[in-house]
Amino acid sequence: MARPAPLSGFPEWSPTGRIVEQHVLDTFRRTFELWGFASVETRAVEPLEELLRKGEIDKEVYVLRRLHATADDDPGRQFGLHYDLTVPFARYVLENSAKLHFPFRRYQIQKVWRGERPQEGRYREFLQADVDVVGNGDLPFHHDVEVAQVMAEALAALPLPRLQLQVNNRKLVEGFYRGIGADDPAAVMRVIDKIDKLPPETVRDLLLTEAKLDDAQASRCLALAEISSFDASFADRVMALGVSDPLLEEGLDELVQVVEGVAGLRGERFTVSADLRIARGLDYYTGTVYETRMAGFEHLGSVCSGGRYDSLASDGSTSYPGVGISFGVTRALAPLLSRGLLTATRSVPTAVLVAVSDEDSRPASVAVAVALRSRGIPAEVAPAAAKFGKQIRHADRRGIPFVWFLRDGETHEVKDIRSGEQVTADPAAWTPPAPDLHPRVVAG
Amino acid sequence: MARPAPLSGFPEWSPTGRIVEQHVLDTFRRTFELWGFASVETRAVEPLEELLRKGEIDKEVYVLRRLHATADDDPGRQFGLHYDLTVPFARYVLENSAKLHFPFRRYQIQKVWRGERPQEGRYREFLQADVDVVGNGDLPFHHDVEVAQVMAEALAALPLPRLQLQVNNRKLVEGFYRGIGADDPAAVMRVIDKIDKLPPETVRDLLLTEAKLDDAQASRCLALAEISSFDASFADRVMALGVSDPLLEEGLDELVQVVEGVAGLRGERFTVSADLRIARGLDYYTGTVYETRMAGFEHLGSVCSGGRYDSLASDGSTSYPGVGISFGVTRALAPLLSRGLLTATRSVPTAVLVAVSDEDSRPASVAVAVALRSRGIPAEVAPAAAKFGKQIRHADRRGIPFVWFLRDGETHEVKDIRSGEQVTADPAAWTPPAPDLHPRVVAG
Repeated sequence: MARPAPLSGFPEWSPTGRIVEQHVLDTFRRTFELWGFASVETRAVEPLEELLRKGEIDKEVYVLRRLHATADDDPGRQFGLHYDLTVPFARYVLENSAKLHFPFRRYQIQKVWRGERPQEGRYREFLQADVDVVGNGDLPFHHDVEVAQVMAEALAALPLPRLQLQVNNRKLVEGFYRGIGADDPAAVMRVIDKIDKLPPETVRDLLLTEAKLDDAQASRCLALAEISSFDASFADRVMALGVSDPLLEEGLDELVQVVEGVAGLRGERFTVSADLRIARGLDYYTGTVYETRMAGFEHLGSVCSGGRYDSLASDGSTSYPGVGISFGVTRALAPLLSRGLLTATRSVPTAVLVAVSDEDSRPASVAVAVALRSRGIPAEVAPAAAKFGKQIRHADRRGIPFVWFLRDGETHEVKDIRSGEQVTADPAAWTPPAPDLHPRVVAG
Repeated sequence: MARPAPLSGFPEWSPTGRIVEQHVLDTFRRTFELWGFASVETRAVEPLEELLRKGEIDKEVYVLRRLHATADDDPGRQFGLHYDLTVPFARYVLENSAKLHFPFRRYQIQKVWRGERPQEGRYREFLQADVDVVGNGDLPFHHDVEVAQVMAEALAALPLPRLQLQVNNRKLVEGFYRGIGADDPAAVMRVIDKIDKLPPETVRDLLLTEAKLDDAQASRCLALAEISSFDASFADRVMALGVSDPLLEEGLDELVQVVEGVAGLRGERFTVSADLRIARGLDYYTGTVYETRMAGFEHLGSVCSGGRYDSLASDGSTSYPGVGISFGVTRALAPLLSRGLLTATRSVPTAVLVAVSDEDSRPASVAVAVALRSRGIPAEVAPAAAKFGKQIRHADRRGIPFVWFLRDGETHEVKDIRSGEQVTADPAAWTPPAPDLHPRVVAG
């Protein structure tokens, strides 16, 4: 077998990269669980008709077939890989609605697949971390603040370039359009959604032609879209545009609550803003919408998005409203790992390599490793009784900070191979400095 | 959308079942990392020709296609979902051989897919936990002992019915067959592999007809297959059969080392034995072989298997020998979860539900939750300012042990809803008893 080549769109990490990814996933899990969100995993496979229900991205689905399908396989029942975690979660909620307790708070960290053309920020297999609250019939607004808070707390703890959570509210925008007399607020929203992609004059033209606004209305819509602030001051600027509408008021109030709710988490790695041009193309959002930019990587688009939807799922008699937000783990990490901007202090969990003097004394070295592990210190035994210089290089290549030597089966010494310092040590008592116990994630 | 039905062969857990699964996965990860094994994840997808290389299980592969494939899609290049973690790991090793450090110690916990007929113990989507050591050119035998030890340490820590690791050695068996003058030791092994499935007289017949043994040879082979012991005493019983062969000696010595190497981990939940009829059907094992039975669930077959293979992968000039063992997480857990034999003390991570007196005082309740979380105590705030009885029922249904009350915005009290005991408490200091901090896995 010749050396295989990587497969475009299916990124894989080195052991070091994987340590970075695990650290990020651990941060999400720890944060979500501190907030009382339960883990759910759904199968990778859904009926094709469910995956195509929304129609928009049908081209991207991977369809499955058994290589040698038999008469047992119903040809009318096709299955595909899920392309997000929302469709399978909606199905899981409906399937288990009698057993789940609502409001149901769940997080879900899994891979998803889309057959789109690979490029930086777009993969065919990628990892998502989703957190949602779903109600049975209704769901109070304060959960919109809560999911922003729990995600913000995780984002603020991630070792990534600064993340800016941008929030808007569909009610605010729709109320404003209604307040200025727009006949088709949805059409206005579709045009405004293109504001980052088209020249300003084109957007204005489209507001006139497609959204049927007059010149003054178009100007006010563009003025609204320009408003953004890192605090609640956006509200005064909206009011200054002189539009009045009950839905606008409600949306303004909600957006102020979300922005103020996460303001306390601002810091070097995280900030939050109200951005009144954020629309999120998907039609099913009905209130709060979230997007997130990573500083220096704005070309990736949003790395963390979501919002409020009045109906995640419905079984005809009951509808399940929800609010949630999803972090694109692979989208955010892949460019940082491939550029070497993020790495780990070593490529293995091992803190101590126990050297072996000769194969006959291997059991004594194994006993040292057992003693270290029993106290939670990751340890491995050298694979061969090579010259000590070679055993030290074995540790060095992997970034293992300490090598343990047993002289004459009696004297125990441990060497910090970075400083060269070597001290006598007791396998039942010696502990590495806390920062060396486990690999750490650091800037590359 | 009507209530969807589960999909046969694609098990999904309730939030409580998922807590059990996470506990098992955490145990594997913690143990593997303590022993210095690095985590690797590979993509779910491999080229079809690689998946079919071994030929044996080609019927079980799921093949992928993009729903709307374009001219960019090479019709000659098909992809399928991996059906184990060994094929993708071998490919990963070859692809990255220039960057990896050998011997390479990795663990891998991922889902795999097989399109076979679903039944208890056989799923179409299931989770595996693999641990392997792979060398470049050669790999010392002591790693056979090591992978048995690391897996045994994990198995002994799992909250499962007693697991019995059964070990054999192909060299021992092949040397024995050679020593009695069998012309085709591989044919003998294929027959002995069926010993658990066929009546004894049929096995004897096959030894005579298919393996071309004479009566005396067949008797000695059957006598060998009957040998098993919980310690190294099997070796004397093999010697007593009076067969002599260098390969037999080598295999005996290796098997003694593996059995004695894990003997120290024996306990209520784990035991180890040498079982000389364990053959593992797959041809690529060349020395140690491992299987594992779960007490009371012997009908599942082996839940944890592996062995030594002289060539995990080869690029023509270099071959990569390995030894590894794989635990079938879904195979072992699904019957226990579906029978209710294993569960968790609650269905959510939450230790404390902070009650809300009225919506105006929600911020005060949120502040309590923030204070608890800052000290690592999982907490959530009640979704609505309902009557306290209803808020307590909200906690009770989820198994949340504590409800926090704020009276008049000043007096803090926390109630253990199991005992009914209610005490005044400080959100900056109160801590639940350690066993209540996180959900625990318990017998159902």
